[in-house]
Amino acid sequence: MRAITIPEPGGPEALVWDEVPDPVPGEGEVLVEVVAGAVNRADLLQRQGFYDPPPGTPPYPGLECSGRIAELGPGVSGWAVGDEVCALLAGGGYAEKVAVPAGQLLPVPEGIDLQQAAALPEVTCTVWSNVFMIAHLRPGETLLVHGGASGIGTMAIQLAKAVGAKVAVTAGSKEKLAYCADLGADVLINYREQDFVEEIRTATDGAGADVILDIMGAKYLERNVKALATNGRIAVIGLQGGIKGELNLGALLSKRAAITATSLRARPVAEKAAIVAAVREHVWPLISGGHVRPVVDRALPMSEAAAAHRVLEESGHIGKVLLTLP
Amino acid sequence: MRAITIPEPGGPEALVWDEVPDPVPGEGEVLVEVVAGAVNRADLLQRQGFYDPPPGTPPYPGLECSGRIAELGPGVSGWAVGDEVCALLAGGGYAEKVAVPAGQLLPVPEGIDLQQAAALPEVTCTVWSNVFMIAHLRPGETLLVHGGASGIGTMAIQLAKAVGAKVAVTAGSKEKLAYCADLGADVLINYREQDFVEEIRTATDGAGADVILDIMGAKYLERNVKALATNGRIAVIGLQGGIKGELNLGALLSKRAAITATSLRARPVAEKAAIVAAVREHVWPLISGGHVRPVVDRALPMSEAAAAHRVLEESGHIGKVLLTLP
Repeated sequence: MRAITIPEPGGPEALVWDEVPDPVPGEGEVLVEVVAGAVNRADLLQRQGFYDPPPGTPPYPGLECSGRIAELGPGVSGWAVGDEVCALLAGGGYAEKVAVPAGQLLPVPEGIDLQQAAALPEVTCTVWSNVFMIAHLRPGETLLVHGGASGIGTMAIQLAKAVGAKVAVTAGSKEKLAYCADLGADVLINYREQDFVEEIRTATDGAGADVILDIMGAKYLERNVKALATNGRIAVIGLQGGIKGELNLGALLSKRAAITATSLRARPVAEKAAIVAAVREHVWPLISGGHVRPVVDRALPMSEAAAAHRVLEESGHIGKVLLTLP
Repeated sequence: MRAITIPEPGGPEALVWDEVPDPVPGEGEVLVEVVAGAVNRADLLQRQGFYDPPPGTPPYPGLECSGRIAELGPGVSGWAVGDEVCALLAGGGYAEKVAVPAGQLLPVPEGIDLQQAAALPEVTCTVWSNVFMIAHLRPGETLLVHGGASGIGTMAIQLAKAVGAKVAVTAGSKEKLAYCADLGADVLINYREQDFVEEIRTATDGAGADVILDIMGAKYLERNVKALATNGRIAVIGLQGGIKGELNLGALLSKRAAITATSLRARPVAEKAAIVAAVREHVWPLISGGHVRPVVDRALPMSEAAAAHRVLEESGHIGKVLLTLP
C-alpha cells in the first residue's frame, strides 16, 4: 500500500507519499481500507519530530479515518467485511490501509457520507471525554471554548448547545466568530481585540465559565483561572501556548476549582474503547438526528498532505481538513 | 455566654475569652451548647487577620464542635433538645454556644465520647469530600498524604486503609512517622531527610501515587506532579507552602492528571449538608465499628485557646488539639 512517511522530521515537505508494507490486523483488530483521513495538530508535531507514535502503533501520522472493513483479525465480533466505519487511531491514518482495535471503530452515522465521517472520531471523542465525562458540563452551565472555529471547537459548540449549555468562544477573526455563531455560540470573543476574562465575566453576570476547554496551556493558565466560576473546571487538551505556567492555587482554592489535562492518543486501548462506546451512545444519535454535524473546511488528496499541513499552520481554516483517497 | 474574641488580629495573645451575646438559632438552625471545640490551621489565619469569617457567620473562630442541642430553630426536624451531636461550623466554635444549620450536625458515633467527637467533623468532611467524593480513591490505589500526623493526615490514613488503598505519608519526625505506621500507613517518608518523589516511585514500582492529599500548595506543586501516577489526582486543601507555583502542564497532560483545590468553610450550606450526609453514611459506620478513630493530641480549656494555637504553630502535635468547656 501507500502511506505518508516521514523519512526525516521537518516542515510540511518532510511528508513523503511512499510505498510501504501492508498492515496485518492482530488479535481484536480489523483492517480498514481508508477512504479519508483527517489532519490534527498532533500530526504537525509528529512531522517535526516532537511527538513519536506510542510503541506498537504505525509510524505514519493520522489519528482518525473513515473507510470500509477489508479484513477481521482473530477474536473480532460485531463487525463484518464491507462495513462502512470511521475510527479513532493511535497513528497510521495517512495511509491506504490501517489496522485498528475493534473497540475504536464507529459506524458511519445516518445521513453522513463516508468521506465526511473521517472528520468525526477525534473531535467527538476529545470533546465528549473532556467536556462531559471529565468536566461534567451540565445544562444551564457556561462552557468557554478556546479556538471555537477549530475542528474541536466547532464540535464543542454543537455538543454543548445540544445538552442545553451556554457557549462562549474565542477566535481570531470576524469570519470565524460568525461561523461559531451559526453553530449556536452565544458569546463571541475576538482574542486579538478583547480580553476574554473580562468578556466572560460580563456575559455571565460576573460568575465566570463553569467549564473551559483549553488548547493554549501555559499562555492562558492564569487568565483561565481568572475566567473560571466557583466549582469551575478547566480541561486542557492542547499546549499551543507553552507547557509551564504559573498557577495561582489560592485563586483555584477559593473557587473550589479543578484543572485536568489529557490526551487521547496515549490512552490504553480499553480506555479508548470506553470513550468510543460513550460517544456512540451519546453523540451518534445527535448526529443522526441532524442536531450536530461534522464541520469540514476542505478535502485534499492524501498525497498532498503537505498542503493540508500548511493549511493548519496558517490557521485560516474553519473545522477539519480531510485527506482523501480516490 | 463567653467566647474567644479577636479584638485585634495578631499572635496567640490576640485571643481573648470574653462575655458576648448569646446566638439565636435562625430558620433551619439549632443552638448547640458546646462541650468541646477543636483547633484548625484556618483558625490561626483568622486570628492573624488573614481569613475573615464568611458573611452571616459568627465572628469567633472555631470550625467544629461537639455538644448538646439546647434549642431548635424554626423548621428543624429530625433532631431534639438534649441530643448529643458534633457539628461542622463556618465559625463560632470557640464559644459556649453556637447556632448551626441542622444539615451540618452529626450524631456522636457509638463508642466515642462527647468531648472526643469534637475532633471529627472537619477531618472526616475534608478527607471524605476530597479523597473520595472528588478524587475517587479506589481500593488498591496508592494515596500519598502530606502531613500524615496532622488531624487531617491521621484521618486520611485510616479512611484510605479502611477502603483497601495503600497509604504513603510524609512527616517531619520519627515519632510522627511511627504513629502513622500504627494507624496503618504503608510507606513512611521523612520529608526532612528524604525526597518524597523518589520514595513514592520506589514504593510503587515507578508508577507514582494515584491520589495526593496536599496541604503545602505552591512549594510542593512541581514535586507533586512528578510523584503522580498516570490518571493521578492532586487534591490541594492547604497552602502552607505558598499560593503561586509553576505548573508543568506538559507533565500533567502526559499523565492525564487532575489538580483540584477546595476548602470547606466557604461552601454554601447545601453543599456542606451533602458532604455531612455522605460522611454520616460512609464514615460513621467505620468509626462505630472501631475501624477508624479520632486522634487527639491533647485537650486544653477553651479559655486557654492561645496555648492551643501555640501547639499548632510549633507543629509538634499528632492529631487534633481540643478546646474543652467545664
